Amino acid sequence: MNRIVKIAAVLVMFSMVIGVAYAQFAKPEDAIKYRKAVMSIIAQHFGRLGAMVKGKVSYDQKGFADNAAVIEKVAVFPWEAFLTPGSDKGDTTMKSSVLENQDDFKKLAGQFEADVARLSEVAKSGDFDAAKAQFGAVAQACKACHSKTRK
Amino acid sequence: MNRIVKIAAVLVMFSMVIGVAYAQFAKPEDAIKYRKAVMSIIAQHFGRLGAMVKGKVSYDQKGFADNAAVIEKVAVFPWEAFLTPGSDKGDTTMKSSVLENQDDFKKLAGQFEADVARLSEVAKSGDFDAAKAQFGAVAQACKACHSKTRK
Repeated sequence: MNRIVKIAAVLVMFSMVIGVAYAQFAKPEDAIKYRKAVMSIIAQHFGRLGAMVKGKVSYDQKGFADNAAVIEKVAVFPWEAFLTPGSDKGDTTMKSSVLENQDDFKKLAGQFEADVARLSEVAKSGDFDAAKAQFGAVAQACKACHSKTRK
Repeated sequence: MNRIVKIAAVLVMFSMVIGVAYAQFAKPEDAIKYRKAVMSIIAQHFGRLGAMVKGKVSYDQKGFADNAAVIEKVAVFPWEAFLTPGSDKGDTTMKSSVLENQDDFKKLAGQFEADVARLSEVAKSGDFDAAKAQFGAVAQACKACHSKTRK
């Protein structure tokens, strides 16, 4: 009986490993490409917000809120790709410390996610001064992570 | 009075032009980079679904549904970037006909969006045979658009 339990446990563990395989990148290069793609999308929309914050483009509440909403949606996507084993090598500026101290990275990523969600919320309210302040908070979250995780 | 109405109309039109400026890409290269980024994200998640459909990875309902949901979310993002003036030149495989016959392109994009939304819905139901069939429909929608719009 004990042996059957052990075999069953091994089978369950095996199916779990297979089960999560869908969520993994086939190669570290795929993870690098993926996270760069997500980051470039975020940069595009954040840049549009920045143009309004800096007065280069006139403030438009719907436009600001729409772009902030896209960032909020996309912000949850890239983290798995940053934590993919081996993705600190190759065509990337990511430090190996991200993989070594994953909890530190997750905290920084979580701060960014929280600030972006708040930005999207504030943007919907139409209070441009509050939106500008929260834009600054998001920019700080970007910088806090980049300064610690980039080579 | 008539003159004031005309001035007001011009001001409204001007504010509309400025108003949509937030939504545009500063340079055609930015639009090209953006749509490639979105497409590579879609390809990554569609590839994970394909691995399950082809039996390379064991079927996992949550994994399948999660990946289909990401595609559904991201599928609405790239179209504006394809319709950006001048983005048929440079580092792209997009035919000029996309810009010349925008309605044709919008129909193909709309078909893809509809098929992807249906895939996400079917994936949640857990009916793997239905999900496989709808995966095929999405693949056809990809192909239908690519074959007409790529150089």
